[in-house]
Amino acid sequence: MVHQQQLRFSTDGRGTYNISKQIGEIINKSGVQTGICQIFIQHTSASLILCENADPTVRTDLDAFMKRLVPDGDSLFKHTDEGPDDMSAHVRTILTESSLSIPVHDGRENLGIWQGIYLWEHRTHSFKRNLSVTIVGE
Amino acid sequence: MVHQQQLRFSTDGRGTYNISKQIGEIINKSGVQTGICQIFIQHTSASLILCENADPTVRTDLDAFMKRLVPDGDSLFKHTDEGPDDMSAHVRTILTESSLSIPVHDGRENLGIWQGIYLWEHRTHSFKRNLSVTIVGE
Amino acid sequence: MVHQQQLRFSTDGRGTYNISKQIGEIINKSGVQTGICQIFIQHTSASLILCENADPTVRTDLDAFMKRLVPDGDSLFKHTDEGPDDMSAHVRTILTESSLSIPVHDGRENLGIWQGIYLWEHRTHSFKRNLSVTIVGE
Repeated sequence: MVHQQQLRFSTDGRGTYNISKQIGEIINKSGVQTGICQIFIQHTSASLILCENADPTVRTDLDAFMKRLVPDGDSLFKHTDEGPDDMSAHVRTILTESSLSIPVHDGRENLGIWQGIYLWEHRTHSFKRNLSVTIVGE
Repeated sequence: MVHQQQLRFSTDGRGTYNISKQIGEIINKSGVQTGICQIFIQHTSASLILCENADPTVRTDLDAFMKRLVPDGDSLFKHTDEGPDDMSAHVRTILTESSLSIPVHDGRENLGIWQGIYLWEHRTHSFKRNLSVTIVGE
Repeated sequence: MVHQQQLRFSTDGRGTYNISKQIGEIINKSGVQTGICQIFIQHTSASLILCENADPTVRTDLDAFMKRLVPDGDSLFKHTDEGPDDMSAHVRTILTESSLSIPVHDGRENLGIWQGIYLWEHRTHSFKRNLSVTIVGE
């Protein structure tokens, strides 16, 4: 059994957006009881992560860490066509995930209690982001 | 054909734990000859990696690298509820993998000769860690 | 429906190699219309990424970033059996991906317009690299 559909999110600039609810709804709709849910983002300057979902400070710390590791406007970067957050967004995408794969059990996402699914927008302004969700199982 | 089961490991603090044998046994038990094996860890402060399995120095070097890149007790971090290794564990998890996807061929994991599957505990003390393993194929 | 086959690439030393065309051909050959394509590299010193496919400067910037983050011959590393690029290659592999999972839609890889699939050779000299490609779907 295979279920597939597109999702579209409007981001409001750099930051993490919890998409767990939308993914849960697609799994529910798919009718799959046991299997794998693949979430794929069709962009190279936004990514996906599984992150602690209780204390928002985790995600502000994560942002602070990325600011130090992959700063905007780094003199190292030559690809700056779309501004100082262009190449940093590509690097941040590559250091995180373009695709998440989550187990489906008893018709639901089998996440740990503290795990949330987040879309991470790496560009500083708003974007439309397209995701493809595919569920394979029985 | 879908086979799914839970695995539980007790870790003895920070470090890498080879779980290749346990994964191989589940694949064997599943009866799947050709397909995909997904290994998923249900936590945000421990992760999964594929790593060189011959020289243990590779993994001590990896630990030294992470100590420099994501140090415990970094003054950057505000999320310190559970101690100096709390936020560093979340960041290390996000820079590595929560989910590994491995090909199944001839009823076995189709790894390279030097690839081992490791659970990486990022917290400094002992934890129980839950994994979900799903095998899809024929 | 499951389709699986091996791919072999000869790399010409460190750098990124676009393998999108070869992956597209395997998906086409598989006959799968809707599903998941898993690409797996059977090595611990070369990896896979999805990266911007238009401006080659993105990939030279990426190389410059990795040179700063995980330099060859770092005095931190003790695993130097195969030279100064041995341990740095293992770390770079772990910070990126050994496995990519891509949606298949209408019999084709459902990538974003700017996404290319790259094999990233992390060793400085030539290697033969083996990949396993598995497509599951209907």
